[in-house]
Amino acid sequence: MPTVKRKRWSKQYGNWFRSVLIDAKIMDYRYPIKGCGVWMPYGFKIRRNVFQILRDLLDSTGHDETLFPLLIPETSLAKESAHVGSFEEQCFWVTRGGSTPLKVKYALRPTSETVIAPMLKLWIRSHADLPIRLYQVVNIFRYETKATRPIIRMREVATFKEAHTSHATLEDAEAQVKDAVEIYKRFFDELGVPYFISRRPSWDKFPGSLYSLAFDIICPDGRTLQIGTVHNLGQNFSKAFDITYETEKGTQEHIWQTCYGISGRAIVAVLSAHGDDHGVVLPPNIAPIQVVVIPIPYKEKEEYINKAGEDIAAKLRKTEVKVELDLRTDLTPGSKFYYWELRGIPIRIEVGPRDVEKGEVTIVRRDTLEKQTCKMSELVPVVQKLVEKIKQDLWQKALQWMKDHVYRVESLEEAKQLLRKRAGVVEVLWCNRAECGHRLEGEVDARVLGVPVDTEEKIDGKCVVCGRKAEHVVRAAIAY
Amino acid sequence: MPTVKRKRWSKQYGNWFRSVLIDAKIMDYRYPIKGCGVWMPYGFKIRRNVFQILRDLLDSTGHDETLFPLLIPETSLAKESAHVGSFEEQCFWVTRGGSTPLKVKYALRPTSETVIAPMLKLWIRSHADLPIRLYQVVNIFRYETKATRPIIRMREVATFKEAHTSHATLEDAEAQVKDAVEIYKRFFDELGVPYFISRRPSWDKFPGSLYSLAFDIICPDGRTLQIGTVHNLGQNFSKAFDITYETEKGTQEHIWQTCYGISGRAIVAVLSAHGDDHGVVLPPNIAPIQVVVIPIPYKEKEEYINKAGEDIAAKLRKTEVKVELDLRTDLTPGSKFYYWELRGIPIRIEVGPRDVEKGEVTIVRRDTLEKQTCKMSELVPVVQKLVEKIKQDLWQKALQWMKDHVYRVESLEEAKQLLRKRAGVVEVLWCNRAECGHRLEGEVDARVLGVPVDTEEKIDGKCVVCGRKAEHVVRAAIAY
Repeated sequence: MPTVKRKRWSKQYGNWFRSVLIDAKIMDYRYPIKGCGVWMPYGFKIRRNVFQILRDLLDSTGHDETLFPLLIPETSLAKESAHVGSFEEQCFWVTRGGSTPLKVKYALRPTSETVIAPMLKLWIRSHADLPIRLYQVVNIFRYETKATRPIIRMREVATFKEAHTSHATLEDAEAQVKDAVEIYKRFFDELGVPYFISRRPSWDKFPGSLYSLAFDIICPDGRTLQIGTVHNLGQNFSKAFDITYETEKGTQEHIWQTCYGISGRAIVAVLSAHGDDHGVVLPPNIAPIQVVVIPIPYKEKEEYINKAGEDIAAKLRKTEVKVELDLRTDLTPGSKFYYWELRGIPIRIEVGPRDVEKGEVTIVRRDTLEKQTCKMSELVPVVQKLVEKIKQDLWQKALQWMKDHVYRVESLEEAKQLLRKRAGVVEVLWCNRAECGHRLEGEVDARVLGVPVDTEEKIDGKCVVCGRKAEHVVRAAIAY
Repeated sequence: MPTVKRKRWSKQYGNWFRSVLIDAKIMDYRYPIKGCGVWMPYGFKIRRNVFQILRDLLDSTGHDETLFPLLIPETSLAKESAHVGSFEEQCFWVTRGGSTPLKVKYALRPTSETVIAPMLKLWIRSHADLPIRLYQVVNIFRYETKATRPIIRMREVATFKEAHTSHATLEDAEAQVKDAVEIYKRFFDELGVPYFISRRPSWDKFPGSLYSLAFDIICPDGRTLQIGTVHNLGQNFSKAFDITYETEKGTQEHIWQTCYGISGRAIVAVLSAHGDDHGVVLPPNIAPIQVVVIPIPYKEKEEYINKAGEDIAAKLRKTEVKVELDLRTDLTPGSKFYYWELRGIPIRIEVGPRDVEKGEVTIVRRDTLEKQTCKMSELVPVVQKLVEKIKQDLWQKALQWMKDHVYRVESLEEAKQLLRKRAGVVEVLWCNRAECGHRLEGEVDARVLGVPVDTEEKIDGKCVVCGRKAEHVVRAAIAY
């Protein structure tokens, strides 16, 4: 029996998410190693569509897809000190080949800066070789000591798109950071996932970077989830690996680097932004099937009704619409409705004897569960419009929901109360000093997400912690 | 300076291959861990196209793409005794998370039978759940003690498509083996790669299988390379992992399984089948660019000639043809010819002042290096036909070359002489006894590839080793 819980928007979110993954055949988390899961056929199709959008965006903005090795010699990982300091305790280590101990042990990549650096050193000679924009979609590994959660916090992150870019100047790297933010915005916009972008506080930036920007969402339970990051690495790695280029003037300079990543959490974001008590709700542009046609046969009219279903499917197959005709005989129509609702197929078309007589079909939207009748003659344009409309409506609804869960408050007590009841994100004024940032985190028992980079606002007021003149708005939340 | 060696069809093949990989920017093998390489942007595009053909073939024949974990607990790997016996010394082992020793150590997958088995046990309940046909495209790891070679023998095999199927009966598994062979034939046919298919001798089958079929090619140096395998696993793994299903009669039976794999060696096969002294030659259907347009500017006519190039590119872009216009100003036309020849772009179009005057262009085929002139008005149909013709011609040429390198011989001495001079594959008659197979391998200092399954032949003669009545033809070669 399916186990989907009916209380998604409450504290049941964790259970809802876990059971929807298995019941909708997205990911099976019961692999014999903790924190490792299996992307099942249906989930893999969603993953393919989601990451195809990302690949297309990167390919069309000067990025080249590549594939670098998984294993990192300990000696490479150790070259950038902040980086190794943060990651060495988080790595899985390969220490043996067969029964032979390895002379240098290998880390399973937790991220690939130190994999790519030695190759860039071989490839980059002059300013004419720059910029270089590479990306790969791979698995990464973290020896998580925290509780693991399906997709959200895995020991094997099965899906990680990491981009790594090299530039001649800091300005070029800064421009690339801006480009990356724009690309990620377009990506999440395509998924109908609303986000906010913050500059992470200095104590929470990527180890080895100058600064980090991050995309966060608010999950249905009021906690936030980081779904994308963009880092300016400065010259930290290029100095550690001595990656230089010859300038036009003939001098040698270290390159400037950025990196930015998006993981399978992008799929968590889609599921969480649009799902409901019936299961998954997919935006049409990432749904493996956009329209499912379900004939409702009455006895002795099966053939006739199935034929009508075939006609409908055939009509739609002549368009771009991805359609599936469900002719299974071992399930009732009701079970089929349930089956496809759980999987989030955007549009269901039902056709029964009365519909055929009237030359009509019944169309049901997955997102609103609204029914409408439609003349067969108008089927194609109605479905095509609906595909576009559902995509827009999902986004608008999710956006409104997010806006409703951001609170500008003026006291620590108010912030604390809101966060305690998992209301969402609080925004307070801040003097920009780390000391007050840490105190804020302690007082409200939450994480500082950082200063908004997606909105501009004139600041006039006092730091909520120390009462000094505020320099920024800062966001705080209970973060996954 | 590029390092492509000019003696591909001789014993220089190894050098040719190694240097063409770097010079054409396919794979860089200079990563700081032996046997691990980097798929560079151009190589990755070829890889994408090649594996897209394979994905399309599998998706259209009832296979579902999935993604399973990389790590295998030692306890899982150990369940099938022949399997673990063969693989445990070949595995890389993860023994630590951070500085904490792991209680159960993990193997990096050398192949995924023991990864998938515990999940199948959870998923399969009844005959209605069967068949299941899954595949994934992943990296696999072998702690090779033999000398590694780029793509051919890696410690990280970065690209491995492995399919795993589950069936109710032996007959269904046998039928799946036949289907898999047909799918692989179509795949290699699409690449224009000629192959032969042999049933591997019992002493060289996949560990844990009933039997193994294999696709081999002959490399330009006369050695053979295994490029695909299909295994009938019988019930070996389903018994080891106790994977059962309820039959229609209500009894419990163990499932029957097959698996079949193709690795990055498919790309080795393409490069080796068609390459020449100038570098890579790509079949048009996997070339990232099919036509490169190179304007040949004369002084003061640059703009006018470049404009002609743009017109040609624009015309072709309206079709399915993938075209690139090379307007780089820092390279001479000659350097551009060299650049694109090295990378194997199937068609080059040159346009200079005289061509423009006459309303013509010059078309050069990469495979034959033949030039022809073509009226601008006929450009599109001529190019479209040529794309198809090059694909066919490459295949025919490679097929003839393979046929010319297979020798039916009647004595061990003759076989030995041919193999010693790396002439290709020898075929001899065989009594089918392992004893004679081993003696054959020893006498001719080569590997028995097995009995042909792609040809049928009435056998009438004596075993080349023992003189008993022969039962089969058997192939032998110096194998990579």
